[in-house]
Amino acid sequence: MKAEIIAIGSELLGPQKIDTNSLYLTEKLNRLGIQVVRKTVVGDDPGRLEDAFLSAISRSDLVISTGGLGPTRDDITRDVLAKALGLSMALDNDVLEKLKQRYRARGTAFQQNSTKQAYVIEGAEPIPNGPGAAPGTYLENNGTVLVLLPGVPREMRYMMESFVLSRLRDRWQLPVPVSVTMNFAGIPESVIDQRLRKFDFSARGVEFAILASLRRVQVILTGKDSTCVEEMAVRVKNEFPEGFYSEGDRFLEEVVLEQLKAAGKTVAVAESCTGGFLGKTLTDIPGSSAVFLGGLIAYQNEAKTRFLGVPEEIIAADGAVSHAVAKGMAAGVRKAFGSGFGIGITGVAGPDASEEKPAGLVYIAVSTGKGDDVKEFHFAGNREMVRLQSVTAALNLLRLSIFGNGGGR
Amino acid sequence: MKAEIIAIGSELLGPQKIDTNSLYLTEKLNRLGIQVVRKTVVGDDPGRLEDAFLSAISRSDLVISTGGLGPTRDDITRDVLAKALGLSMALDNDVLEKLKQRYRARGTAFQQNSTKQAYVIEGAEPIPNGPGAAPGTYLENNGTVLVLLPGVPREMRYMMESFVLSRLRDRWQLPVPVSVTMNFAGIPESVIDQRLRKFDFSARGVEFAILASLRRVQVILTGKDSTCVEEMAVRVKNEFPEGFYSEGDRFLEEVVLEQLKAAGKTVAVAESCTGGFLGKTLTDIPGSSAVFLGGLIAYQNEAKTRFLGVPEEIIAADGAVSHAVAKGMAAGVRKAFGSGFGIGITGVAGPDASEEKPAGLVYIAVSTGKGDDVKEFHFAGNREMVRLQSVTAALNLLRLSIFGNGGGR
Repeated sequence: MKAEIIAIGSELLGPQKIDTNSLYLTEKLNRLGIQVVRKTVVGDDPGRLEDAFLSAISRSDLVISTGGLGPTRDDITRDVLAKALGLSMALDNDVLEKLKQRYRARGTAFQQNSTKQAYVIEGAEPIPNGPGAAPGTYLENNGTVLVLLPGVPREMRYMMESFVLSRLRDRWQLPVPVSVTMNFAGIPESVIDQRLRKFDFSARGVEFAILASLRRVQVILTGKDSTCVEEMAVRVKNEFPEGFYSEGDRFLEEVVLEQLKAAGKTVAVAESCTGGFLGKTLTDIPGSSAVFLGGLIAYQNEAKTRFLGVPEEIIAADGAVSHAVAKGMAAGVRKAFGSGFGIGITGVAGPDASEEKPAGLVYIAVSTGKGDDVKEFHFAGNREMVRLQSVTAALNLLRLSIFGNGGGR
Repeated sequence: MKAEIIAIGSELLGPQKIDTNSLYLTEKLNRLGIQVVRKTVVGDDPGRLEDAFLSAISRSDLVISTGGLGPTRDDITRDVLAKALGLSMALDNDVLEKLKQRYRARGTAFQQNSTKQAYVIEGAEPIPNGPGAAPGTYLENNGTVLVLLPGVPREMRYMMESFVLSRLRDRWQLPVPVSVTMNFAGIPESVIDQRLRKFDFSARGVEFAILASLRRVQVILTGKDSTCVEEMAVRVKNEFPEGFYSEGDRFLEEVVLEQLKAAGKTVAVAESCTGGFLGKTLTDIPGSSAVFLGGLIAYQNEAKTRFLGVPEEIIAADGAVSHAVAKGMAAGVRKAFGSGFGIGITGVAGPDASEEKPAGLVYIAVSTGKGDDVKEFHFAGNREMVRLQSVTAALNLLRLSIFGNGGGR
């Protein structure tokens, strides 16, 4: 099963915009066992678009296009495909009525050029558009399935999930795949990869993929038999009991905030090299104010002493980037804010070394009132990467503490 | 002048990676007056790659590929193109010697499979690779120019700037374009667009483009005559004397930090709804510690009172999201850190309203010791967008203050 994706729109050929819809489409198609073998971007040019459609149709079982379905003159996708295949188009009164209803519901007058969107190619099915106006098109021609989707990501996703995916499964009798996504923190991708190699996934009909970024490592198991997938998922989780933090498409900050809420505890942060990045990451999540009390950006030594009570002598003896200072910052911010947990981060973000300490050296401490946990890290990469890894590591230390020592409040 | 870009690599057909090299290439080509009419992504499959090359060559004046030039088995670009055009390949001893030197300089043994990279297509020129090993290929075939570049962005850019762009200009006698990029803050894209329409750019042979994000609005003027471009640039800047903050590809935080350094002044921040995002943005820039003293993430009312001295009665009377609280936060953090400037941000990031105030309402204050400036904003968009616009607006208020009232230190 080979598929091609055609992204249509002159704006996608400029220096600014890129086709990101294809990533979503690829993920969904791959889970059905359909491989994407080519992606093409073309502008709103009838000749070039026709050429792109015809050559894709000649090569592939499935061609999905995005864009060019709206009411303006630039929206030529349906017309071009009909002409390329020598098919006629007819006004579909049901589709037209739905478009008109949509205008009425919004209290705006029906625009005459919108009628264009109600034309359906001979033999094709219109795909209902939930969040938007322009319907999609589902068509089979000489054994190739053609799917025309809008370029607006929300509408494109709606049509895939409510219509296209089940149609493709039926068309080629594709098994409904079962998939489990597990998120891990604090364990490098390479370690996870290597330690999972001992499991014979393929013998159980399960495929495994690892997706890694500086924020998390995801292990995705996919298969046809849900029992097999779930059994293997349990084994994977048990292999890394400390590293596993959730299933699904979730980031550490969401899970940590939920765990704090569930435990009835709060947190405050003291940041040096991350300069507010940890606070920013926690407050990216709506509702974080229930457990995040605030923090201090102690970018200079004076602030560490004055607001967090880290003794000047310790900074002078060990340096600002040190085990003792991270510990002092965490304890100091916990006391200052009266939170259950305090986090302290001090390090060298780079690019240059500081205090004769190398870029990438970062100390992170969690203070719980019942004890402290301080870890030394040596992160690779540029300034941005060091800072991002610091935030991820701090969230992970906090996660491990929440169900460990327990916090104050 | 029509160009096509082919990105080669099976990893670009998965659900994770996307071809971003084409954005850089498009920008560079557009500035020479070359339009990109199609972009294709293909995997490391000889048949499909050959098909992609041949159809692109049949349509376009220029075909640029990225990827597949390395030493591994997956790297098939050169071989496939030679076969497609019926051209032979020969070992180039100069290229081989340079590869061997590179290994010697790094103290590693020459890998036999690296020899592959020293083969050059008949009639082609190898393009030297500054930062990497694999050379590129420059070839003309029946009037179409073919350029094979590596997929590694650093190497791809090096070859474009050191070799390809001047070659393309010579080949088609393209004028060296002159371009001025100007950055603006605090003025909506639509206002800039409308007010610039009165200038007759095209009469002076100047093209103008506006690129807008929530972080800045850029106006880019391009033309063949540098005098005309520069004259029009002066007019554009003079139209928005307060909004213009720099030329070139620069963000507000870089410019503000430089202006602080030049003025010998410092800043501290008090953040509520942005939760550390302003501190994070300032400390994204290496060397920010020279002028950024730190800040307080006052995510809850208690912290605003305790650490910043905002009276409880004011919070009770006006609410935490208010003109008076922003002003008190800015003054409080300036005093607490002893900085020349203090910034206070309080607002409703959303998605939900708070204190019966709508999401998007944000107050930002700058305290200078000689006076305060407080502004009320109503930002559109989701939580992330409201927070990003808040940070941008705070940096812009600070910029306007630096050469206005003047700060303390």
